[in-house]
Amino acid sequence: MKILVLGGDGFCGWPTALHLSDLAHEVVIVDNLSRRRIDEELGAGSLTPIRTIEERTSAWREVSGNEIRFIEADVTEFDTALDLLHAERPEAVVHFAEQRAAPYSMKSPEHKNYTVHNNVNGTHNLLNAIVETGGETHLVHLGTMGVYGYGHEEPVPVPDGYLDVRFDTHNGREVTDSIVYPPNPGSVYHMTKVLDAFMFQYYAKNDRLRITDLHQGIVWGTQTEQTRRDERLINRFDYDGDYGTVLNRFLMQAAIGYPLTVYGTGGQTRSFIHIQDTCRCIEKALESPPVRGSRPRIMNQLAETHRLRDLAETVRRMTGCDIAWLPNPRNEKAENELLVRSDALRALGWKPICLEQGLMEEVTEIARRYAARCDRTRIPCTSYWTRHQEQARIPDAAAAE
Amino acid sequence: MKILVLGGDGFCGWPTALHLSDLAHEVVIVDNLSRRRIDEELGAGSLTPIRTIEERTSAWREVSGNEIRFIEADVTEFDTALDLLHAERPEAVVHFAEQRAAPYSMKSPEHKNYTVHNNVNGTHNLLNAIVETGGETHLVHLGTMGVYGYGHEEPVPVPDGYLDVRFDTHNGREVTDSIVYPPNPGSVYHMTKVLDAFMFQYYAKNDRLRITDLHQGIVWGTQTEQTRRDERLINRFDYDGDYGTVLNRFLMQAAIGYPLTVYGTGGQTRSFIHIQDTCRCIEKALESPPVRGSRPRIMNQLAETHRLRDLAETVRRMTGCDIAWLPNPRNEKAENELLVRSDALRALGWKPICLEQGLMEEVTEIARRYAARCDRTRIPCTSYWTRHQEQARIPDAAAAE
Repeated sequence: MKILVLGGDGFCGWPTALHLSDLAHEVVIVDNLSRRRIDEELGAGSLTPIRTIEERTSAWREVSGNEIRFIEADVTEFDTALDLLHAERPEAVVHFAEQRAAPYSMKSPEHKNYTVHNNVNGTHNLLNAIVETGGETHLVHLGTMGVYGYGHEEPVPVPDGYLDVRFDTHNGREVTDSIVYPPNPGSVYHMTKVLDAFMFQYYAKNDRLRITDLHQGIVWGTQTEQTRRDERLINRFDYDGDYGTVLNRFLMQAAIGYPLTVYGTGGQTRSFIHIQDTCRCIEKALESPPVRGSRPRIMNQLAETHRLRDLAETVRRMTGCDIAWLPNPRNEKAENELLVRSDALRALGWKPICLEQGLMEEVTEIARRYAARCDRTRIPCTSYWTRHQEQARIPDAAAAE
Repeated sequence: MKILVLGGDGFCGWPTALHLSDLAHEVVIVDNLSRRRIDEELGAGSLTPIRTIEERTSAWREVSGNEIRFIEADVTEFDTALDLLHAERPEAVVHFAEQRAAPYSMKSPEHKNYTVHNNVNGTHNLLNAIVETGGETHLVHLGTMGVYGYGHEEPVPVPDGYLDVRFDTHNGREVTDSIVYPPNPGSVYHMTKVLDAFMFQYYAKNDRLRITDLHQGIVWGTQTEQTRRDERLINRFDYDGDYGTVLNRFLMQAAIGYPLTVYGTGGQTRSFIHIQDTCRCIEKALESPPVRGSRPRIMNQLAETHRLRDLAETVRRMTGCDIAWLPNPRNEKAENELLVRSDALRALGWKPICLEQGLMEEVTEIARRYAARCDRTRIPCTSYWTRHQEQARIPDAAAAE
């Protein structure tokens, strides 16, 4: 099928584009290259030497014989989104074109605004443009497990997006209803995914759009079957305090002898998925689109859950590194339980990759290989969740060096 | 107290600004005058001859001795919102600065985008700017009863924003929770108010902002105690298919001998509030702000509910007019029940004005007095909720003339 991969130059988008191309789908990458500009803004960059998108796609053509077209475009401009859908008429759009880092979204008022504008207006433009071009295009959106929040006192298993609840009518009769799981986002970034979710509810209802929202856990790993075929296809690897995801940061810190940066007690429980599985889950989602007229299909896209201090301990045992216990710049519970289910994707035949030493060592090896490219000053998180925390200038990981 | 009234040149904003000024509050109107530009775009205008904002405020100074300053500014620009809060340091901001017509929001893809951009980005800018200026400012936002939706098969009483629900944990134990009432918006406009509501939840939690969200019913009436003191203070009166609210449209149609435009069966049940009570409820909300750290206070701002065909029948009996039964351009249930409560505002001492012939006749008299200003071609609704309806070119009220 013909698939547009929006944000197809990014950490999840690039390997997904290759994975889908390898399955003989016609893939068009649409990207405004904002992630590369943010690298420049932050003075950080991928640890791995990623190539330009032109080099990437031509290397893929050489290696696989498959063509991936690249269109530089910004869907936060409605006319661009509309022209794109008119011209390409894709059967599906995979939507990674959102600012996806919580710390980046909290960096300053301007970063909050940028995240809201980019994510909410971009997503709305797509929905609006799909309506205008006939409404058949299946939208597959990357959401986050973070929309559910981590605030529950006791573990309540989080189902695939919808929760059955009971409440009373005025005459005391009990009503049951299946509702969108009550959101509880932990950053401006996560909040934008909540807003996305309610736009999906509306457009699925009013315009009968076909929408899949994948609530993804924290992605770890770097390479996939496709990206490791040639060094020019290598995936990006973020290690900085804004964009680096926690397990990859630990593995990279271990590789260069930097103490693992655990914020707070490390009692935060989070869900995880390997980058290879991101690609496979999107494949599954594309293969079985919801029918028109149904509510958005929400699927939890995660393999397992771990407490951060347990992950740090695992990496310490594996590598012999130190752990630095640092004050938490986030505004979140120190400790939380997390019970989640990914029934829907497993029912579609997905068999998740779980944390295993071999895969983790591969990440560490990649980190070691490119260690000379690392700027250690970019490792600490320098975003604060509240003005109170910012004013207190919580000491960060730099102090632990 | 010092209060900024954003959108203070509009249908609800203007009488609210006068009401608060009359109570000796220091009122500053902030408006980008977009509503007047939309009049030009639509080739429609207020039936009543509203004056420029400069004439309005100087007439108010003459009549009351009170000063209302006017600042022309657009809070969809973040720097503008921030500079405003820095310069004015208001104790409260009353936020009417949103595109507020459902049909207008559905007119075209551009109107959908405009509504999302204006409402969501504007509201986010305000929240963001309040955080940056210390977080003490109380934000009073005009929401809508429409966020709850009208889809329930059986009447469930809608409480003030939060619903107590029960659900099961994985081990079968029942959990109770108070959640944001599950939203079910009926247009892009209503959807933006849902997005606003979830931004409020986030900013109240993360930054401990003090937020009141007033879910208002459909406003009827024109004049208030203050606007009737001088003709130069007269409030706007919308009768067109986009901005005219249903009861005012009926009363105006009756006044000029135009058959009342009832869409569908008229079985839609909606909630209503008189414009005078809009002002009084905002007064109540301002007098008792929530404490910092509490969740947003949501209050249903409505006096009563009516089925639209019953309202049409009441107006017919009062005036002897005809009723035109027209196909419904909206995508909504033909008939619905609606049970709502406005306990919170009543607990603050609000005594609602209910529909009464005297007040309705006042509206009709205003409509008669300015009937010569009416452009009958602007009465039909020309927005369609879906492409299917648009393509079918559902005949509209023009056919009924």
